[in-house]
This record gives sequence, structure tokens and C-alpha cells, in this order.
Amino acid sequence: MNSTAMSAPSTTHEHKEEEAPNAVWLNGEPLGLDARSLALDRGLHFGDGLFETIACRHGHPRFLADHLARLELGCERLRIEFHAFEALRREIAQLASGAERALLKVLVTRGQATARGYAPRGDERASRIVLRYGWPLEDPRHAADGVAVRIADLVLGENPRLAGLKHLNRLELVLARSELRGSPFLEALLLSSSGRLVSGTMTNVFVVLGTEIRTPRLDRCGVAGVMRRVVMRAAAEEGLAVEEAPLTRADLDAAREIFLTNARIGIWPVCAVQSRTLAPGPITRRLQARIQPWLEGERA
Amino acid sequence: MNSTAMSAPSTTHEHKEEEAPNAVWLNGEPLGLDARSLALDRGLHFGDGLFETIACRHGHPRFLADHLARLELGCERLRIEFHAFEALRREIAQLASGAERALLKVLVTRGQATARGYAPRGDERASRIVLRYGWPLEDPRHAADGVAVRIADLVLGENPRLAGLKHLNRLELVLARSELRGSPFLEALLLSSSGRLVSGTMTNVFVVLGTEIRTPRLDRCGVAGVMRRVVMRAAAEEGLAVEEAPLTRADLDAAREIFLTNARIGIWPVCAVQSRTLAPGPITRRLQARIQPWLEGERA
Repeated sequence: MNSTAMSAPSTTHEHKEEEAPNAVWLNGEPLGLDARSLALDRGLHFGDGLFETIACRHGHPRFLADHLARLELGCERLRIEFHAFEALRREIAQLASGAERALLKVLVTRGQATARGYAPRGDERASRIVLRYGWPLEDPRHAADGVAVRIADLVLGENPRLAGLKHLNRLELVLARSELRGSPFLEALLLSSSGRLVSGTMTNVFVVLGTEIRTPRLDRCGVAGVMRRVVMRAAAEEGLAVEEAPLTRADLDAAREIFLTNARIGIWPVCAVQSRTLAPGPITRRLQARIQPWLEGERA
Repeated sequence: MNSTAMSAPSTTHEHKEEEAPNAVWLNGEPLGLDARSLALDRGLHFGDGLFETIACRHGHPRFLADHLARLELGCERLRIEFHAFEALRREIAQLASGAERALLKVLVTRGQATARGYAPRGDERASRIVLRYGWPLEDPRHAADGVAVRIADLVLGENPRLAGLKHLNRLELVLARSELRGSPFLEALLLSSSGRLVSGTMTNVFVVLGTEIRTPRLDRCGVAGVMRRVVMRAAAEEGLAVEEAPLTRADLDAAREIFLTNARIGIWPVCAVQSRTLAPGPITRRLQARIQPWLEGERA
């Protein structure tokens, strides 16, 4: 092995990449300081970060403990040194307070790039961005009558290192969601490159097979949703077991009930998968009834 | 199929997601207008964009036509409506001028989110961000003696829809590049989930098998580098054929020569793949000699 090429040059090389940019323009204009820090953020450059979408009712962020637990787990897995959970919690409380209905989106990134190139140097300071959006009433027919879904043309790549995380690399979902434009379908179900059923574009999916409730095991791709976890808790309280399992399209075809979950919508029954129709079933209804008070904010 | 759930609700739903946020905080502080537009950028939220890293010598951006052609192709494939190529070209020229050595990083994103959720609405206005960095002299030993590489532990997911593009979803490369911290290796070679050889973390890879030059076909993942294209042109001028082919780790083991390319470094011979050593070979040297004047900026 050539030791010349492997020791000293490495240090030199790392050193070279440390320089900050000496010009940053957005749409032709030099940026101010705040904007400059965002223009250098590794979240923008690489999608090097995580996010949460938190539904707030009656001034309170719903399922906050679950959101923060997932965020913390994501930071651990990506080795993002984020320690401002208390500050973040205060900001969430402040932005939620007084809003009858609001959606908060929280982004936590590895922060401003302190060097050019993909590798973190280890001295980055994580950034948090909190955005508050209005949240008009949901259409009650989605939860009552169900929604029709299609199978997405887009097939998800598989990477166990990123599986389960709500990270900022979301181009696949942008493309999958784009397929729905102008279609009557509210959601699309996604398969992965090895043929596994993963989730919807913005929801997790559960199927009822016989008397078994199953949801895709998210060890290769997909986002482990907060409402997915809440629904598994609700099922346990109802004495129903939910198995996380490798599922395929065949399981969808065999399912007696299918339902979708996310933190904003709660549970939507699926009333059709492309041309196959289903009725919202008894297990879906039991779980909807069980979580309804939690959605109303009577229990966080 | 339940038509109630499939028609009117869809419209209502899309309408709901149109609202702009009524608060945007970065690390606890409300943001000014410039920074606010960046904090809402789909590049940050989803990695919904593309980038180029352009090496500039003697005041001129090197291989600019190739960079802009790739950027244009990427916009087409992601359906990003970016039409400010002339403005971008002027900004690149202005930032390059007068710099003996500089690196320009250009990001083009789908722009500010005009709605919540993954789906573009179609009325986004693409953003361009241009950053100029210093570019210290490269260590001449890398091109002369070669560099040692390892095989990354991280395995790339495969998605043909994104393959070849230099898009902003780069978490896999952040993780792969992180593996090299504290190691003597300057680069790691990446395999994909189906066992294909793809590229390095910041380079493309070529192998010489017998008298054949091959480089991985990038139809499942990987970035089709500008220098990869330049080197294929150089090979053609030398009367050498380069085949884009599905390659595996076995091809690496069988290769008589291996070399790496990127727009900044040109060509680096590989002098070791983990414990196996190689000498920089005659084909690598011929191609290095052929592109050398182009790297010096005598031909763009």
C-alpha cells in the first residue's frame, strides 16, 4: 500500500475543505446574515436533517412526547448533536398556545456546513426551524366513508440506515405525490425495490388479514409515523395484536380491511385500492373510536 | 368505488394545504424576509432540487457547458421549471472572474413551497443559490501516486427515477463519507442494494479489464459526473472505447487499473482497494495526459 498517498495528504485534503464561502447569492442577490446561515445549512445542501409535523388542538401540541422521542432517535441514528430539546419544547408550546387548530412543522438539521463536502466535521451546531401553519377542518367524509388509493408507479429505494426516519431526503415522495395531481385518488401506496409494501406517500398503512392486524416492518425504507405508534398502542388497549411484518402487494389484495394513519388525519379507512372496493371494517372502526378522544386533545 | 370520497374531498384537501405559514422561527428567532424565503424552500424541506460544483481556473468556469447541460437535464427529469439559465450563466461568470482558483457551488431548487405537503402545486418559482469557495492547490501526490480506497459499509438504495441526477437528497453520501473520518482512506467505493458497483462518495469510478475500459452504468443510482463525461470524451479522442456496464465487486477485484474522476480533481489513480495494491497503469496515464490541458483551463 502506498503510504505517501494515505497519510499526510489526507490531512491536507481535509484542511482544504474547511473554507467558508466568500460569496453567497440567492437569485442574483447577496444574502444577509440570517439568510446566509440558511443558505449554508446542511439541511438544504444534503437533506442532512429530520422533521416532524405536529398537529395542535386547543393550544396543545398533540402526541408531543412521541414526536420528540422520534426526533431524538433520528438525531442519534444520524449522529446529529442536537441538545436544544428544552428550547424547542418551549417554542412549540408558545407557537401552539392560543391556536384552536394549527400545524407545526419542526426541522432539525445538522446545521451550517463548516466545511465543503459531504462529511460532517463534527463541530457543526444543529439548527432548528419551527413553522406554524393554519389547519382548516378536515373533511369528515375521509374518516367516515374512507378514501380511494392507487399503487404508485414510483418504487422506493431501500436503505436500512435511513429506514424509519423522518429525514429530509424526500424527493421520492415528491415524485410519488406528484403522480396524484389531477387524479381522484387522495393517497398512493408505495412498494419498494424488492417488492415490499411500505406505506402511503404521507401515511402509514395497516391491513387486516383474517383476524390479524399487520403493518409493514420498516427496516428497509419508509417513515415510522407517530400515529402508527399511537394506533399500535390503541390496538393493545383494545386487546388486539399488531404485527410488524414484511408485507407485499398480495397482502393488500387479501386484506379484509385496510386503513391509513398520520398525525394530522388520525385514521382513514381505505374504501378502494384502484378498482377493488372495500368497506370500512369493524377493526378500523374500533380503532377510530379508541383514538377519537386523543385526537380531540383530551389526552396527549 | 366510493365516489363521494374521491371527488369533492380531493379539491377541499388540496385547498387546505395551500396556506403559507404564519410564523417561521430559526433557532428561536423570527426570520427576516430573505431568510424566510429560504426557510420555506423545497430544497430544504424535501431536497427538491439539484446542484453543480464548478471548478474555476484563471477566471473561467471549467466545463461549464457540461455542468449546465446536466443541470438542465435534471430540471427536466424532476420537472423543475427553471428558466433563468442566462442569469445563472452571468452570475457564474461574474463570480468566477478575477479568481485564479475558485469553486462555485450552484443549487437550483423548485423554490419556495406554495403549499404544505410533498406535492408541488406547479406554480413554484425555482430558486438559484450560488456560493463561491476558495480552492487551495490540490495535493499533487493524489494524481501522481494514486489514492487508497475502501469499500463503504453503507449500501446505496436504488431508484431509477433519481439515478444519474446530482439532486439534493444526499444523506446516503453524508453517511458514507462519515465512515472515512479518522481513516487513512481518501475515498470509499459504493455498492448498491442489488450488489452493483456504483461510484465513490464524491467521484465516479472507471476500471480497466483486459484492454476494456468500463464504468458503472448509472441506471439505478449514482451521479453521472461531469468529469466522467469528459473522460469518456478524452478516451474517444485517444481511440479508446469506454463501456457503461453493470459492474460488481468482482470487476473491481479483476481490474488491472482503477481510477476515480470528479470535476475538481480530474483523474486520481487508485493505488489500493483496501489491502489489494495496484500501480497506476498506462491507460490511466494516457487519459490523465489527455485531459491535463483541459484542467489547466486551456480548453473549456
